[in-house]
Amino acid sequence: MNLKDYIASIQDFPKKGILFRDMTPLLQNKEALKYALDQICDFAKNVKADIIAGPEARGFIFGTPVAYALNIGFVPVRKPGKLPRKTVEYAYDLEYGQNTLCMHEDAIKKGQKVVIIDDLLATGGTVEATIKLVEKLGGEVVGCAFLIELDELHGREKLKNQKVLSLLHY
Amino acid sequence: MNLKDYIASIQDFPKKGILFRDMTPLLQNKEALKYALDQICDFAKNVKADIIAGPEARGFIFGTPVAYALNIGFVPVRKPGKLPRKTVEYAYDLEYGQNTLCMHEDAIKKGQKVVIIDDLLATGGTVEATIKLVEKLGGEVVGCAFLIELDELHGREKLKNQKVLSLLHY
Repeated sequence: MNLKDYIASIQDFPKKGILFRDMTPLLQNKEALKYALDQICDFAKNVKADIIAGPEARGFIFGTPVAYALNIGFVPVRKPGKLPRKTVEYAYDLEYGQNTLCMHEDAIKKGQKVVIIDDLLATGGTVEATIKLVEKLGGEVVGCAFLIELDELHGREKLKNQKVLSLLHY
Repeated sequence: MNLKDYIASIQDFPKKGILFRDMTPLLQNKEALKYALDQICDFAKNVKADIIAGPEARGFIFGTPVAYALNIGFVPVRKPGKLPRKTVEYAYDLEYGQNTLCMHEDAIKKGQKVVIIDDLLATGGTVEATIKLVEKLGGEVVGCAFLIELDELHGREKLKNQKVLSLLHY
């Protein structure tokens, strides 16, 4: 199965000059969704994940199914103002714009092996911020998995010490 | 297992007078996450779902695992400006504030049986908007499942003709 058949490419979205990779056709197709998630599950199992962390909002789409299939927990990584209890925060630059990410202070237990799952590896700012948050809480990131990696944005350079799975490269 | 043990209740979040039900402790706990999702999977299977629709962002958390487990597709229901292709839209009132929801025009095929999954049934505005969008595209909503229902907000009155599953009531 070629998963690229289920990715729509949209020029100038969300702004001029950006070629947006839309994964909604993949999500809607049961075979493509299963094929993608099976591979991410295998990866997370192989690196012995204790828990999955997924950044808002599309990281939730790929993160929770893997947590459920592996019978482990899931930690949502959120933008400011969404988590009601005490958080740790980390600010960073995005492919376009700026962002801050937050996790609850009790989200990760010391020594837990964490796999970070997101839809897209672009400049790597989001995953790098998530790694910082996990480490602040005493967790160990044992792998990072993405549906899509945009090679020309060199996000992987921020993940030199990590095991990385990207199902699709553009 | 009493799932309420894994819900944190936070007074005055996100604003004064709101008692926020925080489900992140449930997500982090593998047994609680599995126990909750197993029940939603059974419900969606029993009503013969062809596809799952989940509103942004917490609907993604519960919707995709069910789609994956049942080997069906998932449709993200999103706020304006997030979906890059042609959409249908529906505006509605929230528990606090106002909102518009969107789906891609090709998200649902005519006659598909759709189960809507979200974390919370409050006033019912979000699920009602999602039903409208599904029906606009020719789909049939065969069930709505929630982790939490806030009984005093009477959201269920908007779902009189629907099969509804709520795992927790407050």
